[in-house]
Amino acid sequence: MWTELLPIGRSSVSGGYRRYAWSGADLECRAWFRAQAEERGLTYEVDRNGNQWAWLGDPAAGGAVVTGSHLDSVPDGGAFDGPLGVVSSFAALDELRERGAALDKPLAIVNFGDEEGARFGLACVGSRLAAGQLTKDKAHELRDADGVSLPQAMERAGYDPAAIGPDPERLARIGAFVELHVEQGRALDLSGDAVGIASAIWPHGRWRFDFHGEANHAGTTRLEDRRDPMLSYADTVLAARREARAAGALATFGKVSVEPNGVNAIASLVRGWLDSRAADQETLDRVVAGIEAAASERAARDGIDVRVTRESFTPVVEFEHALRDEVAKLLGGGVPVLPTGAGHDAGILSASAPTAMLFVRNPTGVSHSPAETAAEDDCLAGVTALADVLEGLACS
Amino acid sequence: MWTELLPIGRSSVSGGYRRYAWSGADLECRAWFRAQAEERGLTYEVDRNGNQWAWLGDPAAGGAVVTGSHLDSVPDGGAFDGPLGVVSSFAALDELRERGAALDKPLAIVNFGDEEGARFGLACVGSRLAAGQLTKDKAHELRDADGVSLPQAMERAGYDPAAIGPDPERLARIGAFVELHVEQGRALDLSGDAVGIASAIWPHGRWRFDFHGEANHAGTTRLEDRRDPMLSYADTVLAARREARAAGALATFGKVSVEPNGVNAIASLVRGWLDSRAADQETLDRVVAGIEAAASERAARDGIDVRVTRESFTPVVEFEHALRDEVAKLLGGGVPVLPTGAGHDAGILSASAPTAMLFVRNPTGVSHSPAETAAEDDCLAGVTALADVLEGLACS
Repeated sequence: MWTELLPIGRSSVSGGYRRYAWSGADLECRAWFRAQAEERGLTYEVDRNGNQWAWLGDPAAGGAVVTGSHLDSVPDGGAFDGPLGVVSSFAALDELRERGAALDKPLAIVNFGDEEGARFGLACVGSRLAAGQLTKDKAHELRDADGVSLPQAMERAGYDPAAIGPDPERLARIGAFVELHVEQGRALDLSGDAVGIASAIWPHGRWRFDFHGEANHAGTTRLEDRRDPMLSYADTVLAARREARAAGALATFGKVSVEPNGVNAIASLVRGWLDSRAADQETLDRVVAGIEAAASERAARDGIDVRVTRESFTPVVEFEHALRDEVAKLLGGGVPVLPTGAGHDAGILSASAPTAMLFVRNPTGVSHSPAETAAEDDCLAGVTALADVLEGLACS
Repeated sequence: MWTELLPIGRSSVSGGYRRYAWSGADLECRAWFRAQAEERGLTYEVDRNGNQWAWLGDPAAGGAVVTGSHLDSVPDGGAFDGPLGVVSSFAALDELRERGAALDKPLAIVNFGDEEGARFGLACVGSRLAAGQLTKDKAHELRDADGVSLPQAMERAGYDPAAIGPDPERLARIGAFVELHVEQGRALDLSGDAVGIASAIWPHGRWRFDFHGEANHAGTTRLEDRRDPMLSYADTVLAARREARAAGALATFGKVSVEPNGVNAIASLVRGWLDSRAADQETLDRVVAGIEAAASERAARDGIDVRVTRESFTPVVEFEHALRDEVAKLLGGGVPVLPTGAGHDAGILSASAPTAMLFVRNPTGVSHSPAETAAEDDCLAGVTALADVLEGLACS
């Protein structure tokens, strides 16, 4: 199963994955999902938002136990973030069938579209649309770096962008959603466990800082005549680290775009994207406000006009305690429960249905990188744990 | 003449010019040059390095008076940088013919290819090749951002990349080269003069700083586990301004490239390009060494591997004093003589033939930007000055 998925969208240069929503690589991943569903005799369907579902049993029966994750990637991402959850879902189903488990409830495997937001800048588009957390109008305004809009991209991929929107009836079928994911930190490595359970997702968001200056010749313009936005940007990058460290939070500038981006031209515009997260809302607000204040102060000194736009935001998600405790019981106790800074479709869905997450140990903690990894034994332990949870939830 | 040239390669978004070497816009500019030459009955030729020449009189006679500049642009450049020199050359020739000037020496107008280096990262490629300051092998290694090599780009544009190389016989025809250029600072504006004469070009170069870190998830990686190259880059940008200010020099980071450049991914690689210039070699060396030391110090703290590559370098150019004094005499005295921080083909050629430069007032000093400008009266004064100089040099 892995073998067919592994080469799709992999860069021969970086070794990382470039599976952007609605791209050719994404369509290949989607074809793989459909083939896996059909090989197993599952009922395959695509919802109005382009999320893929594979059903065992009657969806209309209600109270379904749903598992799955996503197949798209960040730029030069690793092989596990997303795909491990989908592959483990199919493998867990295979294990349940081998066990001869008698399921009382329908079971579904889902692949949510555009989880990483690598192409259009907004994460979890597929689950957000379904849960009504992203409107059709806002979604239609999304554009990629080449100016292609989300509706155009969907249309080119053979999907109908006019159909997108909230899907409460489909979500109402879900009795419980369990997402398995490779851990994106080293907590399980440090505690010595193969599998863990999520307690909460930190509140997190993306802010775009636009520093507008004046293009000019780098070789002839006196320092005192310059309005160089690169200086304000640089100072803000350092301020972000300072504010995050002081608050025990996270703040990162990982994406930049510069105009005109010529070696001998002072930039006219530097756009930097801030990703920031913290354990609670108040801390996050304080960190972002501190970074904005530092940016404004420096921009004023540099003669720069700075504008900050919040491009996305997800409040804290506390996974349902009843489901979390049941999952812990099904795994026999002693499984660590830990929070995460990363957003997930399970976080989005938690507002619509009981959700839980399982994490599989990541020995280096490296994530969103070709170096991301997980040991085969741990992946197999994850499949067994997921099968145990699905069986427990689906057999009343 | 201007009217036909103005729309070529102009972005409807920025209003700036994108006339990159061997691109469609560049080829349109070249067609314009050829048409101007042929309309005036000049002998048109393209040399082995793709530079265009328009001859009045017999090139083989020797001691030619040559004028001209370039037609390519930086990304989103202005209308005057380069084209003003070429347009003024044709206009000055028209004025000489109206005057009925009897020239004793051949006269040529030249358009040097790829002066700005916007596409392949190296400035003055056409004149460097001709003067033997860039080898054919090195030139063949140049690649643009899409991985297209210089030979491929030349070939696609219908030129023969196998022919490029030193052209001493052609340069030996030149008795004097005079380049007219819009000023790229405000010295003439501050002194109240329409036209000035160049004394020297500051030594200048481009250095690429590669900061190698480790890609990781921006939402889950603890600050202490990160190796984030954006921090080292940001600190180096601020160090560059500090070092330049302390030394009375110039240092600019105007171009950046980030991998993977995702909002929720810590960068694995940040490449920043430094442009630095100073009045003398010793000062420039000190400034660049100071920036490199600051980069290394910060990189060590951030766990980053930093590598610095000098991509191009042009030593100080002191324009020939005899020609400079003759030009000043031909303009009737009282014309200011000033240095510039910008590189020019005239600087490259100064090693092969006597060269001089005329500057036309730039009321805002803005350069390498769509806002670059020059008053019509000043441009006409520039044409008259150039005609005076050409007439004086060509009539013995």
